[in-house]
Formats: sequence, C-alpha cells, structure tokens
Amino acid sequence: MDCPAGFRLSGIKFKDSENLAFIYSPQGFTSAGIFTLNANPAHPVQFCRKNLTRESHRLIFVNKGYANAATGPAGLKKQRDLSSHLSEIFDIEEEEILFASTGVIGKNFDIPDDNIQKVCALKEYVKPYDFAEAIMTTDTVKKVATSEFEINGRTINITGIAKGAGMIKPDMATMLSFIMTDAAIEKNILQKALKDAADKTFNCLNVDSETSTNDTLILAASGAAQNKTIESECENYKIFYEHLRKVCRILTEKIAADGEGATKLIKINLKGAPDEETAKRGARAIASSPLCKTAFYGASPNWGRIVSAIGAKGIRIEITKFNIYINGVAWIKNGSPVKESEEQVREIMAGSKYKLDIDLNNGDKEYLCYSCDFSTEYVRINAHYVS
Amino acid sequence: MDCPAGFRLSGIKFKDSENLAFIYSPQGFTSAGIFTLNANPAHPVQFCRKNLTRESHRLIFVNKGYANAATGPAGLKKQRDLSSHLSEIFDIEEEEILFASTGVIGKNFDIPDDNIQKVCALKEYVKPYDFAEAIMTTDTVKKVATSEFEINGRTINITGIAKGAGMIKPDMATMLSFIMTDAAIEKNILQKALKDAADKTFNCLNVDSETSTNDTLILAASGAAQNKTIESECENYKIFYEHLRKVCRILTEKIAADGEGATKLIKINLKGAPDEETAKRGARAIASSPLCKTAFYGASPNWGRIVSAIGAKGIRIEITKFNIYINGVAWIKNGSPVKESEEQVREIMAGSKYKLDIDLNNGDKEYLCYSCDFSTEYVRINAHYVS
Repeated sequence: MDCPAGFRLSGIKFKDSENLAFIYSPQGFTSAGIFTLNANPAHPVQFCRKNLTRESHRLIFVNKGYANAATGPAGLKKQRDLSSHLSEIFDIEEEEILFASTGVIGKNFDIPDDNIQKVCALKEYVKPYDFAEAIMTTDTVKKVATSEFEINGRTINITGIAKGAGMIKPDMATMLSFIMTDAAIEKNILQKALKDAADKTFNCLNVDSETSTNDTLILAASGAAQNKTIESECENYKIFYEHLRKVCRILTEKIAADGEGATKLIKINLKGAPDEETAKRGARAIASSPLCKTAFYGASPNWGRIVSAIGAKGIRIEITKFNIYINGVAWIKNGSPVKESEEQVREIMAGSKYKLDIDLNNGDKEYLCYSCDFSTEYVRINAHYVS
Repeated sequence: MDCPAGFRLSGIKFKDSENLAFIYSPQGFTSAGIFTLNANPAHPVQFCRKNLTRESHRLIFVNKGYANAATGPAGLKKQRDLSSHLSEIFDIEEEEILFASTGVIGKNFDIPDDNIQKVCALKEYVKPYDFAEAIMTTDTVKKVATSEFEINGRTINITGIAKGAGMIKPDMATMLSFIMTDAAIEKNILQKALKDAADKTFNCLNVDSETSTNDTLILAASGAAQNKTIESECENYKIFYEHLRKVCRILTEKIAADGEGATKLIKINLKGAPDEETAKRGARAIASSPLCKTAFYGASPNWGRIVSAIGAKGIRIEITKFNIYINGVAWIKNGSPVKESEEQVREIMAGSKYKLDIDLNNGDKEYLCYSCDFSTEYVRINAHYVS
C-alpha cells in the first residue's frame, strides 16, 4: 500500500530504538490537529498547537524514545534547536513543521544530530507500514488503515497510521496518529471533519484510563487528487467525512485490540439511556472498570460488576428492565441471567472480539466505546517498562 | 482482645462459605453510619439508611455470599423476610436491626433459615478477630483495630473490625466496617465524629477505583463505660474523636496493605497545592492510575507517570519547582531525579510500605491518600473470582 499522492514517508530504526520518522510534502498540505487534554502537554504538542494556526505545512517530524514532556526550559530549548535544524535541512519555514514524540516522560530530550542528518538524507522513501513500524513502542502490530473513493470523478485516498497500546483513554486523540489524504479541502472544514470523526472513534477508546502528555492526531490534505476543493458541508464533504470516519474507526479498533496485554477487542454500547451524557458516562464507566475488564479477561459472565460500575457513576438502574446482549445474544433479561444462552455467552466471551449492548431501557440514547480486557500481561509490561 | 462492654459478637463459617455473623447489644446502642454513594445500593444498605433515623439499635446482622444488590423486588422481599425473622428470634423491633452484606452482586438472596437459626442460637460469643474472619472474602488478613483511653476517669474502648480488599475507592465507607465503643455519646455528635474520621481515613483509600454497591461503615456506642454522655464538641469529644480516627486510620492502612494482589501499602501525600480540591484531585489521580500503580509494583522509579496522571486531571505542574520525596528522601528535585539518592529510592520502592510526598510547590494545601500497588495477582484474582 502506498500513501496518498503528495506525501513522502521516511523512517529509520536505530540500534537504541530511538527511531526517527517523517512525513514530507514538497507542495505542502492543509492540516488539522487534535491533541491531548493533559494539563502538562509535551513540548512537541505545544509547538503543533502554535504552528497549526498557519494554513499549510510541509513536514511532520516524529521521534521515538523521548516524550519531551516534563523537561522544562531545557526541553523547550532542545525542541527549538530541532525546529531550526530541520528548517535548514528542508529549506522550509520553522512554522511549516509539526512535531510528534513518543517515549519516556521526564527524560532529557537529546536526539543526536547525526541521526537527524541520517533520516533526512534518505533518498528511498518508505511505505505506510514501514512508517508505522518505526514509531511502534509497546505496540505488537503495525496500525494502518486506508480508504479509496471518488468525488466528482476524481479518485481520493485517505490513509492513516497510528501507534498506541498503553496510556490510552477517551477525550484525546490517540497516542500518535497521522492521516494523509490527497483530497483538496479547505482548512476549517478539514478540522471539523477530524474533530467529528475523532469524537466518534478515537475519543471513544479506552485501554487503561490514562491520558498521555503527547497524544497527537494530525490530518494532512495534500490536494494532489485535484478534486474541486471541498469548502462547505456539501455532499462531497459527507462522502469525505464517511471515509475519514471509517479510517479512524479501523485505527481505533486496531489500537483497542492491541491494548497493552489485551487479549480481546470489546465494543461496549450503552443504550436505552435517557440522555447522551448518561449513555456516555455509563459506557465509559464499564470501559474503565478494572473489575469489568479483568472479568472480560477471565471470560467470566460477571454482570453484577457492570451494574456496580454504572451505579458508581451515579446512574440508577431499574433492575427489572435491565438487559445485556452479547453479539446480539440475550445474556441478561429483565435483571436476570437467561439460562438458555449461558453456554453461548461463555463461548462468545472466550473469543477475541465481541460487542456488548447494555440496555437501561429508560430512553433512546446510546454511546459506543472501544475497549479491551485487562490482563496479567498489562501489569507485567508496565511494572518494568519505563514510559 | 475482647470487644467493648455492652456488645456480644457471633459468627459461623458454613461449609459453602456463606457465613453469618452479628453484633448484638441487649441494652441497645446509639448508632451512626456511612454508606456507599453507588446509585444502585444494595437492599441491606437501603434498610440501614431507613432504620438509622432511629436513635438506637440492638442488632447488626452481617452475611457473606450474597450482596443482595441488583436483585430487584425479589431481593427486597427476601430482605424483609430476614428482618421479620430476626425480629422474632431476638424479640426486638425490626427498626432496631442494621444489615450489611458482602458477596455476589445480582445473585438471588437466599440464606437458608436453618443457618439463621444456627447462628442466632449460639450460646458462645466470639472475639473480634473471629468475627473479622467470618466476614472475610478475598481478604488475606483479619482486620481489627482497638484503642483504649480515659475520659473523666472512665476507661473507654473503641474497637473496629473491617473487611475489604477489592472494589475499594474513595467517597464511601469501606466495604464493610463495624466500630464499637462503650462510650456514652449523643447520636448527632456520634455521626459527626464518624463522618469526620471517615473523610480523613476510609474516604482517602483507593485499591482499584471501584465503588461497591454494599459499602457500609457503622459506629455503635453502647454507653456501658458510664462516662458523662458526650453531647457537644467539648474536650472529651476531641479525645474520643482522636481515638476513633486512630482506629479508622489503622483499619484503612490494613485494607490498603491487603488490597487484592497488593504487595505494598503506599501513602500518597500531594502537597504544595494552591487549594484543597487540587490537592485531593491530584493525590487521587495517582492513587487510581494503573500506570503509576504497576510502576510501584515493579519498584520502577518512573516519575513521569506521576506527572502525566496529575496532568490528566487538569492540574498544571511548573516542572522546575516540582519535587518528590519518598520516606523523606529527595527523589525528584526541581523537576529532575536526584542522582545521589537513586539507589536509596530503589531500595525504599522495593519495600512493603512507604510514603510519597509529591510537592507542587505552588501553595500550602495537602491531601493524603492510602493506596497500594497493582499486581498481576490482582488480575488473576479478579479474572475468575465472581463478586
């Protein structure tokens, strides 16, 4: 799979795993971004926020090994040095550069100049899967998603790359994700599309209830497809948006399924809620409950924990109206386990992917979360991995 | 150790572990209670709330095996039956009975009449440690604390019993805890003492961020010490309160240290905060962060996760003023690890008990949380244990 027209990808895996990668577009791209809501954002996030006020950019530079978060004025200086260094190498304005970092929080940001030279000097460009590999940390699979479609007879491509397995929780973009498209689309509408798509996908994701200092989601549109520029919420926008949302959804599912130590992808849909806020709070409560997630890991049909997790967030359940379905099979009906489906429920729970519909039967609002189970492996990874 | 004068304890361990226990006082006791904030409280909790409007009570009846939560009208009927049954056996008013249950949420409440008869017919009363043992579930140690002191020449005893290892998080009493005293003390002031003591102890506790449907903390005062009844926030009240708080603190530390799968007790003190709300939010963020808690388990000095957890709750850190001390040893000073103490920090982290002082250096407010680490054993216990 190639990346959309107008972009060149590069990436080098160094011996110490302090890899570097970049997305470059000689003609520039229109850009949209969403970042962590952590009150102590990393320097690269702060640079992105500032530079994103510009209309277009030419470079997204990514490093692995250092988060450049909690590094104070020294880290700020290093980020500035990197920015001016890259500006010289690519002969572009500093404001045309967007940054993303993943690695140890609090560690002195110190990328050797040699490595920067090496990655920038690469003549051979790489494919999206290679780029994905260069930025992996505890990820076990490369996360790439793509969608191709037509707008007014022009073929449009959207390709997204993501990394992330731990420190993943709603209300942010995911750890790091870069989505490229060759569509021509105006900046404000591009940001709207990204925000709306992320709200239905990345922001519905919870691996471990942790919001990192470096979460970054960037959408870059090169315009190389030469379609008539999308400037409003027209029919073409709707087509573009649906495909963007699809790419985001696939990346979201890949992150949930590859959650640190996770053995299964679980979609949690809270329905029958009186309002959206209740649906969201309830679904997220289950997605972040260690007791629900360990029961999912053990394939244990422990539905009382679901009731408790929802109640702990202040949501009253009328138990005689309360239902749970797993992959459409009735598991709990009117507050009691359905005897006939017991075996089937256990079989589904033992699988690697399922969907829960939890029905409060008290309205028509629902909210879908993407989550995973919580295993001994999660603890093992994080007891010693320095992040 | 005996229990304070005026109380008789009983408890039977049945073969199926569906144990029963009670605290009985023929002369009655003045009572105060604090219960779960879970929006779906168990029936026993609802009975307690209603009955606590009375001045005094004579029986606290405890069962293990059934939470009698999420059991709907059927569970309500069974609770009523139990209440009328006990009222007959002890020849007391139904409103004089307080209930507490621990066990499986959603399971049909069904205590055999035979077992009720057996426990009530016991002529031999048991000691606090035996009572504690009868109500243990995943607890690995019996949790009892006692304090003896004088008020106006009368010896007063406060003895508390608790159970709890999982489903433990702030803003509640703990899972189940019963504190008895022979002091004579007026009901309103007794409730105030319990609320204030719980706010500084049980409500500062976090094992796994889960709030159960059954949390119950009851303080019962028999008056058998025959001191002049404490009726206001006088000097005698202050003495009583300090000893009550001590008993609560010891039980809190025992629960944290015995958290499901926990290998160490960790006191987390967030200091230097501009206001109490910030101190509380920050301390609780660390106490509930899976990444901080797995690092504590691995004895990994991963301070970046502490910064991230605090920031995820919207608290800005000025990194060049940020300090962390562990058992008083400077670990992080002005945002950087202290080289000289590295080895010592690792040694302390490898131990079974320590205190963290996390200093934002931005005010004079602080908040202390009682917590523990997060181990592979927690996941193993909860993947298959039905709670």
